[in-house]
Amino acid sequence: MKVKAAVAWGPNQPLSIETVDLEAPKKGEVLVRIVASGVCHTDAYTLSGVDPEGLFPVILGHEGAGIVEEVGEGVTSLKKGDHVIPLYTPECGTCKFCKSGKTNLCQRIRETQGKGLMPDGTSRFSKDGKPIFHYMGTSTFAEYTVCAEISLAKIDPKAPLDKVCLLGCGVTTGIGAVLNTAKVEKGANVAVFGMGGIGLSVIQGAKMAGAEKIIAIDINDAKFEMAKDFGATDFINPTKINSVTEEVIKLTDGGADYSFECVGSTKLMRQALECCHKGWGTSVIIGVAAAGEEISTRPFQLVTGRVWKGSAFGGVKGRTELPGYVDRYMKGEIKIDEMVTFTMPVEQINDAFKYMKEGKSIRSVVTF
Amino acid sequence: MKVKAAVAWGPNQPLSIETVDLEAPKKGEVLVRIVASGVCHTDAYTLSGVDPEGLFPVILGHEGAGIVEEVGEGVTSLKKGDHVIPLYTPECGTCKFCKSGKTNLCQRIRETQGKGLMPDGTSRFSKDGKPIFHYMGTSTFAEYTVCAEISLAKIDPKAPLDKVCLLGCGVTTGIGAVLNTAKVEKGANVAVFGMGGIGLSVIQGAKMAGAEKIIAIDINDAKFEMAKDFGATDFINPTKINSVTEEVIKLTDGGADYSFECVGSTKLMRQALECCHKGWGTSVIIGVAAAGEEISTRPFQLVTGRVWKGSAFGGVKGRTELPGYVDRYMKGEIKIDEMVTFTMPVEQINDAFKYMKEGKSIRSVVTF
Repeated sequence: MKVKAAVAWGPNQPLSIETVDLEAPKKGEVLVRIVASGVCHTDAYTLSGVDPEGLFPVILGHEGAGIVEEVGEGVTSLKKGDHVIPLYTPECGTCKFCKSGKTNLCQRIRETQGKGLMPDGTSRFSKDGKPIFHYMGTSTFAEYTVCAEISLAKIDPKAPLDKVCLLGCGVTTGIGAVLNTAKVEKGANVAVFGMGGIGLSVIQGAKMAGAEKIIAIDINDAKFEMAKDFGATDFINPTKINSVTEEVIKLTDGGADYSFECVGSTKLMRQALECCHKGWGTSVIIGVAAAGEEISTRPFQLVTGRVWKGSAFGGVKGRTELPGYVDRYMKGEIKIDEMVTFTMPVEQINDAFKYMKEGKSIRSVVTF
Repeated sequence: MKVKAAVAWGPNQPLSIETVDLEAPKKGEVLVRIVASGVCHTDAYTLSGVDPEGLFPVILGHEGAGIVEEVGEGVTSLKKGDHVIPLYTPECGTCKFCKSGKTNLCQRIRETQGKGLMPDGTSRFSKDGKPIFHYMGTSTFAEYTVCAEISLAKIDPKAPLDKVCLLGCGVTTGIGAVLNTAKVEKGANVAVFGMGGIGLSVIQGAKMAGAEKIIAIDINDAKFEMAKDFGATDFINPTKINSVTEEVIKLTDGGADYSFECVGSTKLMRQALECCHKGWGTSVIIGVAAAGEEISTRPFQLVTGRVWKGSAFGGVKGRTELPGYVDRYMKGEIKIDEMVTFTMPVEQINDAFKYMKEGKSIRSVVTF
């Protein structure tokens, strides 16, 4: 079929709205009509050309929501008309990782997904007979996309797709890092580095967990108003003080019980660890650092009880847990609407990237 | 009173057997007759002069066992004749750290202990009127020592003090890192870097926890026989292969569930982390690195689910948990005797340091 899509022909070029060819879903695959998709920093990272795993031409997008249009052979858990969120972290339920009970990092289709292909090793997208790569197993910057059945979470059909699409990445990543990865408990002190979409979601996750002190850290004071609305109780602008680490330690009488790095800076990752409380402070890395960069610290920081971990998609299992996040949004327990700065037709998607770069948006959502 | 002690007058000098003056225990303090003391790498580290917190003159020793001789004012939990193990990690039970339920790192007397002094800011040891520093709150290289009440664990009086003294540091550190810090579960795969006293204790801890595969890693093949006796199932000599990390991943079908660094090398700390299983592998740093050295890795290692932590005294609370370790030794559940390579009178303590340096001993124990 012919579908409208925003194609990235090469690194660091504007996306191009094209009519591309999309093959029907094969065995274990599902055709999804994408209704809306958030534009996330990871899309911009790959588009910039610095992502060592980036492939072109490609249809980007991994924060979408849509409606099942057709299912391929053997698909049993979804049917036409189901509302779904595509998952860049699938959940097969049967691989070593899924069965471990310890991680959400299903590896069933990892290899082909990393190569921009469907599980059978081919692409469904093409233009003039030349294949276009898939992206993160989702490719949500298209009117229609094909995903593996295990890469789709079935959600409440009443949920507004142009909002809950953000649960496909940023919002879930932030809240999940608090609830699943760090397991923040009532009364804890929390420090959050970076007030983008993920940082704000960490703030609201910390509030949901009953944290007492929630410290928002950003170099832009303008971010603090929204951070406060999401639950932040204290604010640090690193450009206005000597040492963030010392400031957090002072504010928390010894250090944060939990800290979260939501920027992707290895320098901040170190600060986030070292502002944690001796004996038990846990720091969670969420931000994605540039290729080749390394984190470092004195081992003494860990020997005296701090814990360094990371989180991908908030440790959330997409098919079993994500629908519950949609339900909590519907009940008013999770804020999403406030994070959607702009909603625009996909034809204006390059503006979304521009607003992100200029710091004018938390998230832009494109619609089809 | 006059007591015999091995005094370190300065860095990198042999210890000198001296008769020194020891003041009576003050409020909250206890006079202990030391019966035996292990000689540990940390003593050698401080003696070498490279420990930035090292102070001289000092009476080293932190792996001892003895009998209460006299208690100072206000001491209620101990009486003359009690058998005790001095604790370099005290347990007051009432500070923020003790009450947290999350750490064994009691901070009650940390500041003075770090300065080589008793909690009132003075030393009990002196020679010719000049004070000699305490060490780690224990100073077990003396016939008699004075410790804070909170720095003494009361143990089964039937336990042989020239063996259970090793529970004052190495053995407990290794076993505790497995049971308390990592919480290794039945069936897990474990990789252990370094087959000294701590590494062997990690091995036996892993066996106690029911680990399935226990990989001993050391550059000296001669260490593997004892490692096997302690429970190791697989052996890697890094000098004989390309990559320890790859070898562990191969042996464990994807990586170790838990790894332990027991050497103090930041290079090995990185290997220990990176040989862990994606999604959940947890690496515990036990070894003490040289001052100023740093650990590093790509943050991706953590974002994909590995956890980096550390352990001090095995996360064991000295007064409440250590007596149970002594009991487990008495029941034959913890091996110690096999680790005592030499037992010698304190007069030969410099030989103990020599044997350690030459790799001839797991542990030497000096007696008084």
